Amino acid sequence: MQTASTSPHPTGKKAYEVVLDWVEGRILSGELSVGDVLPPERELAHTLDVGRSAVREAVRTLQAMGVVRSTVGAGGAGGTTITAVPSRALSQLLQLHVALANFPLTDVIEVRIALERLSVRLVSTHGTAEGLEPARSLLEVMAEPTIDRQSFNDADTAFHVALAAAGGNRVATDLTVAIRESMRLPILDRFRTLDEWDVVVERLRADHEAIYEAVLRRDAEAAEALMEEHIRTAWSSLDR
Amino acid sequence: MQTASTSPHPTGKKAYEVVLDWVEGRILSGELSVGDVLPPERELAHTLDVGRSAVREAVRTLQAMGVVRSTVGAGGAGGTTITAVPSRALSQLLQLHVALANFPLTDVIEVRIALERLSVRLVSTHGTAEGLEPARSLLEVMAEPTIDRQSFNDADTAFHVALAAAGGNRVATDLTVAIRESMRLPILDRFRTLDEWDVVVERLRADHEAIYEAVLRRDAEAAEALMEEHIRTAWSSLDR
Repeated sequence: MQTASTSPHPTGKKAYEVVLDWVEGRILSGELSVGDVLPPERELAHTLDVGRSAVREAVRTLQAMGVVRSTVGAGGAGGTTITAVPSRALSQLLQLHVALANFPLTDVIEVRIALERLSVRLVSTHGTAEGLEPARSLLEVMAEPTIDRQSFNDADTAFHVALAAAGGNRVATDLTVAIRESMRLPILDRFRTLDEWDVVVERLRADHEAIYEAVLRRDAEAAEALMEEHIRTAWSSLDR
Repeated sequence: MQTASTSPHPTGKKAYEVVLDWVEGRILSGELSVGDVLPPERELAHTLDVGRSAVREAVRTLQAMGVVRSTVGAGGAGGTTITAVPSRALSQLLQLHVALANFPLTDVIEVRIALERLSVRLVSTHGTAEGLEPARSLLEVMAEPTIDRQSFNDADTAFHVALAAAGGNRVATDLTVAIRESMRLPILDRFRTLDEWDVVVERLRADHEAIYEAVLRRDAEAAEALMEEHIRTAWSSLDR
């Protein structure tokens, strides 16, 4: 059974790729959509003339892309359901490629600026006070005088994500999550070794407040400029 | 052996997750970098106390994220090498999630505009004539009077990617590839059913030429505005 996943399939593809192509083709054509359940492992293996381990490898790959999840059915039968949770998959992908230095941090930051400018523009034009509630709570968390560096970093990450979410663009939000997550460790490293933590944190608080005030008064231009300035200066104050 | 990949590991994680976490942890800490080879399947399975099928599932997942590739070694021993090819992985991920309607096309387009504005600004400020050579060749391909719809769509995709590449930001380039790829089929569908193909294609050619001229004379502001206008009108002329 084990060799089935590595030996060539009649089509010339690897066995797990046959399964992957089958599922992806059906997603792209619209035959499979969110909530649909894949045929059982044994049946899919039989239909596609591959080993069950090949089916399992393909399913793991689809899981990693946030496209399916495994559900445990009654009697332990289990099933694989089409889902759509791209943000974790995107985060993981970007995080690994930042770590592999394939994506230089300066490139990541320029893209982050472009995306977050878009987000605050969308919040300024389409946002609602309710939609901004999570961002406002996070300002309060960050204002706590005794907050430690890690908690501040977590709330800071969440604040940027909350603004993106309030903008309502799902691609921008998921990419913002992915990019901010991919920078969480490098940023925390710098937070930890920073001598002038008190000075930096005061500056970050003021920046966040100013951005929040700008979107609240629907001043898209100011919000975009403040966000860009914030990301640039925050990074350069940390990057030494 | 097959049950090893699904039965719980002493850590409470699934067996393939143990392998995934092991590799990812080493990439994030910098212990594994591009060109390094993973321990052989058998050895890794033994070290981490999992079945070999679990190792293979984890490796497939890492392949899908563009983080490793399988290499066939001397004597068919084979090996798994750390690599860094995120663009195909990103494309596939976005394409599937667009198809699953998790990412509405209108959201994708707003993000595309933000990224491609960034790209043409970078080309206008840092680009070189040599870097723009591929984009220029593609203008000639698209100018061919007898070009069919699919070939035009391919060259159009490649033109946008070539501009991003000339800008030199690898994250923006890979995301542009991913986003444009994720739109290739929906756009081609619309190209195919379009009555006024001749009118639309003339307009697209003129847009591309104008964008190219703007970056060539290093007019970032014009290039950004033209790119945004191009993406918006091209889409609305197709979207009916």
